[in-house]
Amino acid sequence: MKSALHFLVAARQCEIAELEQLQRTSALVERLSQFIHALQKERGLSNVFLYNAGGHGDARHGDARQAQMAECDAIAEAVRESFFGMDTTAGHWGHGARLFSRIAYVLQELDALPALRARIDARDLSPEAATAAFIQLVAGLLAVVFEAADSAPDPGISRLLVAMFNFMQGKEFAGQERATGVAAFGAGISDAQRQQHWLHLIASQERCLQVFAEFSPPLPLALWREACAADATVAVIERLRRVGCTAAPGMPLDGDMAMPWFDSYTLRMDAMQAIEALLATELQQQCARRITEARAALQALQAEPSQAAMPQASGFLADGDGQAHSARLGPQLDRSVIELVQDQSQRLLAMQAELETVRAALGERKTVERAKGLLMARRQLGEGEAHKLLRQTAMNQNRRLIDVAEAVLAMADLLPPAG
Amino acid sequence: MKSALHFLVAARQCEIAELEQLQRTSALVERLSQFIHALQKERGLSNVFLYNAGGHGDARHGDARQAQMAECDAIAEAVRESFFGMDTTAGHWGHGARLFSRIAYVLQELDALPALRARIDARDLSPEAATAAFIQLVAGLLAVVFEAADSAPDPGISRLLVAMFNFMQGKEFAGQERATGVAAFGAGISDAQRQQHWLHLIASQERCLQVFAEFSPPLPLALWREACAADATVAVIERLRRVGCTAAPGMPLDGDMAMPWFDSYTLRMDAMQAIEALLATELQQQCARRITEARAALQALQAEPSQAAMPQASGFLADGDGQAHSARLGPQLDRSVIELVQDQSQRLLAMQAELETVRAALGERKTVERAKGLLMARRQLGEGEAHKLLRQTAMNQNRRLIDVAEAVLAMADLLPPAG
Repeated sequence: MKSALHFLVAARQCEIAELEQLQRTSALVERLSQFIHALQKERGLSNVFLYNAGGHGDARHGDARQAQMAECDAIAEAVRESFFGMDTTAGHWGHGARLFSRIAYVLQELDALPALRARIDARDLSPEAATAAFIQLVAGLLAVVFEAADSAPDPGISRLLVAMFNFMQGKEFAGQERATGVAAFGAGISDAQRQQHWLHLIASQERCLQVFAEFSPPLPLALWREACAADATVAVIERLRRVGCTAAPGMPLDGDMAMPWFDSYTLRMDAMQAIEALLATELQQQCARRITEARAALQALQAEPSQAAMPQASGFLADGDGQAHSARLGPQLDRSVIELVQDQSQRLLAMQAELETVRAALGERKTVERAKGLLMARRQLGEGEAHKLLRQTAMNQNRRLIDVAEAVLAMADLLPPAG
Repeated sequence: MKSALHFLVAARQCEIAELEQLQRTSALVERLSQFIHALQKERGLSNVFLYNAGGHGDARHGDARQAQMAECDAIAEAVRESFFGMDTTAGHWGHGARLFSRIAYVLQELDALPALRARIDARDLSPEAATAAFIQLVAGLLAVVFEAADSAPDPGISRLLVAMFNFMQGKEFAGQERATGVAAFGAGISDAQRQQHWLHLIASQERCLQVFAEFSPPLPLALWREACAADATVAVIERLRRVGCTAAPGMPLDGDMAMPWFDSYTLRMDAMQAIEALLATELQQQCARRITEARAALQALQAEPSQAAMPQASGFLADGDGQAHSARLGPQLDRSVIELVQDQSQRLLAMQAELETVRAALGERKTVERAKGLLMARRQLGEGEAHKLLRQTAMNQNRRLIDVAEAVLAMADLLPPAG
């Protein structure tokens, strides 16, 4: 029975290694959260700059943009350091192939940031193109967080990562809504397509925040509910949403609304960031707690007196219903290791069940990714083109992105194969 | 841009490490396939021995049983060697925690094999209890194979493992059917519950073999179809199936049918094993091929002349539709690395999409496992008890196991929480 115990110990050691990896990933996620927040602010200020916000508050926001770019650069430097501080030895990271590819993508986007800013400085780029460039960088960063959430082997930590990823994704939709509002008021005229996009951003945001609410620990959720409670900021945002989204297409929009919209929305974004920071702290603590627990369990396992015993029989003689009847087996039976093995398989199965339930919450994004991957493979499209095709189809048919993605997967056999 | 390339290289290295792990797992799976086959035969011969087969062929099959036990022991020794030859260093195996727990379970069951045989020798065990004990050991071995199939990171190899796992699972249902037939004819009387179980084994077997047919490469599938084509063996099995499954409960069954049933079915099992061996060879070859490919891709990546270049911009400036417009960016652009990053993300997404599609085929078993895990956690049951509860409910309600499992998961909120 020593042999079974050897593998129980090895299993626990692997579990600890996986938790330690998760702890490293969580530290990275925390830093990415800060970076995304800084980029979202820079994107907003760049939009204000490009739209010139009807001439209002230009200087103030121009200075703010300069300061924001400096802040972004400082955090970008820290993010780069985190990346390059990673031990990229094969085997050190469970999902290395996917994680590192995502990071390669981010680094490439990051290298292009100075060129993007130069073109914004020169007003050589439409606000839409500038916004899209920032969106692409943030999407790359969120994809890194998603990899972490999708590969976490512990249900409790996975719950927290699902809550955090959805909050971050919801916040990004909020950031895009801020930009869209600036664009709408900045343009000074109501536009049907922009209104539709605006409503889509509100709906996507709310769906993410619902998933967050389902998986969040109590404290961040309570704070979020408090932040959502009616106050002056919420009132301004809701009023301007109504104005912007209901004005008949072609009608003028008051350019003076751009700055109050931007400022109120920025307060909201900052409040969201405080909650994200809380989630990140909770994540770190939970990793540390689980590692301590797993180490204690390993020590208990290694201290088992039965490790030295050499039993000659075990408890697998079973009746017709598959139940172990170890009691029949006599005195040479090594009960404790049998129980350890049973406990372990029970624990793993229960953990796996919980983990799959939690991960199911990531299913919507995965379905969209699968549909995208399918289109890319079958129709030789790039990632951007595949996403655009899905989104365009959803808009044309007035259906949700997820529904179109599901339809694509269901119709997979009808799509022509590659080549 | 060197930085992005660094992570592309790291991603490829991780991919190679994962494929090498898969190659080791595949070698293990091949050995387990042989071991399961030997155990299935020993189970069948033990049943014949315990039922005494109406006095027919007892000596011949008794000798065969002794020889089979010796063969089992030899393969068991090789399996143990494979297990103990594994480098259990944390991080060396991607899903170590689960894989090693499964192995601990198998080793514990293996240690109990001598005691099981001693009780069979002494006819101190009902044929049902002996069968159940063998079923439990085989289930433990199949769970190791399932872990491998579920964690394979390459869609092509995953397909093959899904085909192989389902073939092995189907063959195990076939082995159980062989035992059930021996029991039915050996008992000499028709029994309603046994008939129901028999039909259930035929149906489960066919479902597994359908999944195999869907995922198998052409050659093993062609051989399997050939083996299924009407011949003398198939004719005997089908005729005895009909006799055994349609006899009115309480009516006598001809004990003389036990040996023809066993012998014909054993020919079928041996034919299945030949196909399994072919699948195992194909698996090894595909692993080797993919490793060679991945190494070549890594070399090509490392030989990229652009690795030395230090570009100042990249292709992430995008228009409103998220499409990269790198052409605008001027001469300092390092096209090749941008393309490499894009190719990699396209490849990963397509691979992931295919992988999820393939893994969906494992969903049925996973759903049952999830339901089992849920029952274990919420009602403080052991794995065997939870499985029994699901199976009993399915039988009582005349529904499939998978449907009951889905209902359990859907009703999760109604089950009392643990504690």
